[in-house]
Amino acid sequence: MPTTAQATVTVIGLGPMGRALAGTLIKADETVAVWNRTPGTASPLLERGAQWANSPAEAIAASPVTLINVVDHDAVDQILSSAESVVEGRSIIGLTSDTPERARHTARLVADRGGRYLDGAIMTPAYTIGTPSASILLSGPRELFAEHQALIEHLATPTWLDDEPGRAAAHDVALLDLFWSTISGFLHATALARAEGISPTAFVPFAHGIREILPAIFDGFAERAEQNRHDDPVSMIRSIRASLAHLISATHDRGLDAAALEAMRGYLDRAERAGHGEDEVTRILETMSRG
Amino acid sequence: MPTTAQATVTVIGLGPMGRALAGTLIKADETVAVWNRTPGTASPLLERGAQWANSPAEAIAASPVTLINVVDHDAVDQILSSAESVVEGRSIIGLTSDTPERARHTARLVADRGGRYLDGAIMTPAYTIGTPSASILLSGPRELFAEHQALIEHLATPTWLDDEPGRAAAHDVALLDLFWSTISGFLHATALARAEGISPTAFVPFAHGIREILPAIFDGFAERAEQNRHDDPVSMIRSIRASLAHLISATHDRGLDAAALEAMRGYLDRAERAGHGEDEVTRILETMSRG
Ligand SMILES: NC(=O)c1ccc[n+]([C@@H]2O[C@H](COP(=O)([O-])OP(=O)(O)OC[C@H]3O[C@@H](n4cnc5c(N)ncnc54)[C@H](OP(=O)(O)O)[C@@H]3O)[C@@H](O)[C@H]2O)c1
Ligand SMILES: NC(=O)c1ccc[n+]([C@@H]2O[C@H](COP(=O)([O-])OP(=O)(O)OC[C@H]3O[C@@H](n4cnc5c(N)ncnc54)[C@H](OP(=O)(O)O)[C@@H]3O)[C@@H](O)[C@H]2O)c1
Repeated sequence: MPTTAQATVTVIGLGPMGRALAGTLIKADETVAVWNRTPGTASPLLERGAQWANSPAEAIAASPVTLINVVDHDAVDQILSSAESVVEGRSIIGLTSDTPERARHTARLVADRGGRYLDGAIMTPAYTIGTPSASILLSGPRELFAEHQALIEHLATPTWLDDEPGRAAAHDVALLDLFWSTISGFLHATALARAEGISPTAFVPFAHGIREILPAIFDGFAERAEQNRHDDPVSMIRSIRASLAHLISATHDRGLDAAALEAMRGYLDRAERAGHGEDEVTRILETMSRG
Repeated sequence: MPTTAQATVTVIGLGPMGRALAGTLIKADETVAVWNRTPGTASPLLERGAQWANSPAEAIAASPVTLINVVDHDAVDQILSSAESVVEGRSIIGLTSDTPERARHTARLVADRGGRYLDGAIMTPAYTIGTPSASILLSGPRELFAEHQALIEHLATPTWLDDEPGRAAAHDVALLDLFWSTISGFLHATALARAEGISPTAFVPFAHGIREILPAIFDGFAERAEQNRHDDPVSMIRSIRASLAHLISATHDRGLDAAALEAMRGYLDRAERAGHGEDEVTRILETMSRG
């Protein structure tokens, strides 16, 4: 396998996202070193000029700054452990989604070996990378962010949040929660529509209609949550419960699971039992605790 | 209590939505008769010129067309049963959310008494009523829709779907599924962010960032679903499972319930067990059936 010639940036992890990162950096005229657990995936990048490294240590040693984008921070830490000896004096930018605790743990691991660590959460799909609509949230030393900002801007619009390394992951978990709840809800609704004889592409324009009413609702609910104000409801707990009951039974009648709706009904039930049946739905912020 | 003088339109049900409907019709210079189970709610509307009817029968008899907007179709049918004798020759527009079966049942009930029935699903919040962004889906006889289109346009932008009366409700159940899954996900994410020390109003701009990537994803997933094509994934089943596992444990660590995410993990698990771990997440359309 090729070379260990000096690169300007290293990418470790060549899943769909890592390939998008490395490919975009090559396009931006960076000299890119790459490593992936499964070497085969690298071929198209090597053809475009990327340099293969034979190990994580060789990869990190090949350049001053390494992006690590793998499945989770267990994998990140395995990779770093096998490359401990070369971390000193280098910058590691972790772009792997995981919890704040795990991001902080990786930050300590890097610091213990004399490296510097920035944690990033990529908020948009792989196909956005290299376009202005791509977004990465970052946390860790501000001067380290400043040092690598131009590099990161090849990939996405960066938002630096805080010196505390867990901050990007803290935002990431909440945003992934929103994202997957919404995607799961969309796919579930698509299945339900299909059971009604409405095809996915016939259904999607109506789904966009729902999406379009979200901005004002999100803002209004955030204000209410901030002020802990749940009176004068537009969507009353008791009314929604009635609506959900019909929705859940219609879902079951069509042979579909309704666990997400049932979870929400549980939160509404608890709010009503606590005497908040006439409040705005935002009251369930208090009843989502583990029962 | 006042009068039974001839009105141009009747509104039965004065919850938050019914009040918005009646208020908007008054503003549009209609002569509006109203009835609500709890009379007190009507006062502000009566002050603005609405006419109180002493019973559902009196209300329906007061005008050629009656909008019924109550909690569900059980309530609709109770109201209609108590007014059977006056339905003949009148138009009833049901604007109450429920299942297609219940909408069809109400349509039969009205037809059996010699009335004509249009079923509508209001797709936007009460505060949109009377603005162009309000949306109502309708189904039932096309000529009946045409007859009342101008009246409905005072309230919202109407979309007539089909002669079959259950069609609006069929769309409604799927769209409410999407809506409540998303709202529940948003509130849950807000609670999770708060547990991370991110306040609701600090969190909401990031939530908008997620919302903004949805259009392309919805369209892409609808195309895949339509063509039953789940290869060449951007969001691979196996990767999402790893991400969700961390997300669920972070949620639990913060004392929050994670049932909606766990439901999604269940769909992913089944897809992976069926040999689809390397497919796009749209594969779970097939694994959302009741287990
Ligand atoms: N795809 C997107 O659109 C997207 C969007 C936002 C954020 N992200 C985040 O980006 C990260 C990567 O996502 P992805 O979509 O590219 O796919 P992924 O399935 O999350 O990660 C795949 C990568 O992880 C590597 N890997 C897994 N276990 C490993 C281990 N024990 N040691 C070393 N490497 C290991 C894989 O190597 P092999 O090739 O050898 O299996 C592959 O390079 C994730 O944290 C994800 O949440 C992705
Ligand atoms: N609010 C919104 O933003 C919104 C948006 C889209 C669709 N919708 C739909 O519009 C409909 C009405 O919603 P809403 O928000 O106004 O509140 P709601 O709580 O769903 O309905 C309240 C109305 O139903 C009446 N009602 C309940 N049970 C009854 C019964 N057995 N007999 C007669 N009347 C009965 C109530 O009378 P009392 O006053 O006597 O209790 C009140 O007028 C629902 O189907 C809802 O899904 C609402």
